[in-house]
Amino acid sequence: MADRTYNFSPGPAMLPLSALEQAQRDLLALPGVGISILEISHRSKAFEAIIEQAEANLRTLLSIPSNYRILFLQGGALLQFAMIPMSLLRGQGKSADYIHTGTWAKKAMQQAKFQGGVRVAWDGSAASFKRMPSQEELDIRGGASYVHMTSNETIQGIQFQKTPDAGSVPLVCDASSDFLSRPLDISKYGILYACAQKNAGPAGVTVIIIRDDVLEGMPTDLPSMLNYKELADSKSLLNTPPTFAVYMVKLVTDWLINDIGGLEKMHRINQEKAALLYEAIDQCSGFYEGHADTASRSLMNVTFRLPTPELESQFVKGAASRGLVELKGHRSVGGCRASIYNAMPVDGVQALRDFMLEFSEANGR
Amino acid sequence: MADRTYNFSPGPAMLPLSALEQAQRDLLALPGVGISILEISHRSKAFEAIIEQAEANLRTLLSIPSNYRILFLQGGALLQFAMIPMSLLRGQGKSADYIHTGTWAKKAMQQAKFQGGVRVAWDGSAASFKRMPSQEELDIRGGASYVHMTSNETIQGIQFQKTPDAGSVPLVCDASSDFLSRPLDISKYGILYACAQKNAGPAGVTVIIIRDDVLEGMPTDLPSMLNYKELADSKSLLNTPPTFAVYMVKLVTDWLINDIGGLEKMHRINQEKAALLYEAIDQCSGFYEGHADTASRSLMNVTFRLPTPELESQFVKGAASRGLVELKGHRSVGGCRASIYNAMPVDGVQALRDFMLEFSEANGR
Repeated sequence: MADRTYNFSPGPAMLPLSALEQAQRDLLALPGVGISILEISHRSKAFEAIIEQAEANLRTLLSIPSNYRILFLQGGALLQFAMIPMSLLRGQGKSADYIHTGTWAKKAMQQAKFQGGVRVAWDGSAASFKRMPSQEELDIRGGASYVHMTSNETIQGIQFQKTPDAGSVPLVCDASSDFLSRPLDISKYGILYACAQKNAGPAGVTVIIIRDDVLEGMPTDLPSMLNYKELADSKSLLNTPPTFAVYMVKLVTDWLINDIGGLEKMHRINQEKAALLYEAIDQCSGFYEGHADTASRSLMNVTFRLPTPELESQFVKGAASRGLVELKGHRSVGGCRASIYNAMPVDGVQALRDFMLEFSEANGR
Repeated sequence: MADRTYNFSPGPAMLPLSALEQAQRDLLALPGVGISILEISHRSKAFEAIIEQAEANLRTLLSIPSNYRILFLQGGALLQFAMIPMSLLRGQGKSADYIHTGTWAKKAMQQAKFQGGVRVAWDGSAASFKRMPSQEELDIRGGASYVHMTSNETIQGIQFQKTPDAGSVPLVCDASSDFLSRPLDISKYGILYACAQKNAGPAGVTVIIIRDDVLEGMPTDLPSMLNYKELADSKSLLNTPPTFAVYMVKLVTDWLINDIGGLEKMHRINQEKAALLYEAIDQCSGFYEGHADTASRSLMNVTFRLPTPELESQFVKGAASRGLVELKGHRSVGGCRASIYNAMPVDGVQALRDFMLEFSEANGR
């Protein structure tokens, strides 16, 4: 770890050291294969075993029911923002209900508008996206094509604590930034998707979990790479998948199963890590001001402000000089943000907490 | 090299050992950065330097004129097959001319048909795709949206020796399987695109080179990830790009510049490697039968048959036992295929040539 910093980036983000070390060890040639994972044919038995294990690991971790398919696609969540309404909204004569919880929900809505009508089922903008809605606040109508939610808003630092109930309408979830950070009841979702580069692997692969009946109802006259049905039928091998990124998902999910012991344990660790930082914020209230309402605080992205932009800048620089990097908030909202995904060690969070207390002490409180 | 085999896969394919070694050395932390390339923010200065160097290397190698943009996208050539007609064909009231040279040209046409009218400017199917057309044979009409060509057909093993002239119509080229294998006059193309996993890097990134005037004429009401203009304006950073794959493109193009000495030298080496195998085929004619007509032979994919499927199967197995793997032809055409992209060492080709001569000797000739 000597040369490695604690990287609080919102994504791409830290990966488990053991996964990085295994990838490094085997980078020139996979054991017994004689070919690098970077060179291996996606039609080879060796790669088939890797992608099947990645899928099996996800099924184990999330107890994914057998009537759900798992896809490994390219293009990030931003391409999913387009593919979902292309498949479920366009030409259906219905609208889709979007829960507008922050920057990512808004981006998802913007992409959907190219394909059809979008209704806002709840709008958090008036309250500066400080919280997630309660079930009672959601204006979900039975006739929608689907209900779209964002489980965690990385920029605002708010997270759903409970899955909303969409009734009989398929619930579609962008889980990019808290996927695999806690157990989930997959059966509540029609589609759940997540780019890998927060908790599941490196940038370059996006995991889609999709219920059979939702898949079967989709149009089939779409270009192949935008056609979930074709992609699912080919088991994500319609063309060459991002082989290395899928391999890393396998290594990261191996770590979650074997080293961490599953998602309940991971969730507990994530709760402990987040508590360290939120306690520091609360302890120094008046100096640090958290963005999120307490009940909506994200376990993944801790967002806070200091009394002045100058102090924020000093804080970010001071932290970096101790090897705690990427603490600047998103340019659209300013402030500070500590992203503490699964692979951020407790030690890193403790070091940041210590620095926060020290910095507050030294700067006027 | 001890544990590494010679991998004749059509792609993903071998990468230069020096690029793999550098990636391995720096996998836990980029020197001076303290963060792995697998974890680094795509908005960081360190990654900015990497993607800019990858672009600069491509500009150097191919002398790309300044009125062309370079994009690093996801989704492979198959997504380009859809994005190109979405941008240049749909709603234009024109058709597009496709040169039908083999399996990949056909796939490109199929995807275009979702967006508009497709005309076949030449059809090689009657002659079993044994050759590329001459300029005189091409039925290119001035009114087309674009002319689409496939510079090298990996499955049939045929390659254009000269860029066709499309007149004033933008020429669009799928150069996936011979990109960076020889010098090219980029100014002849409106768009040239290539997935990386043959000559340019690992699977997971696709390079698009696009002329400004073609880009400027495109519709802007497309979903962001399918919108070349938005992707170009963001310098491929509209969302998180496949950071590791882009890094590998940088390392591979570094190797082409510094170790090989540019594309003319690379081309000469590729000619020498291909000659070794084609000479073996010609020398043992009657035993080995090449698929391609001599004048259309691909320098990248050498396709040939043996007298019987049983001998082909023995040949593939015998070669594998000597560490020469992935020599089976594509399932759609059968036979054998040796893919000898840039990073396949001359030693590997010589070993295959020696085995071909020996096998022919031992089996009836």
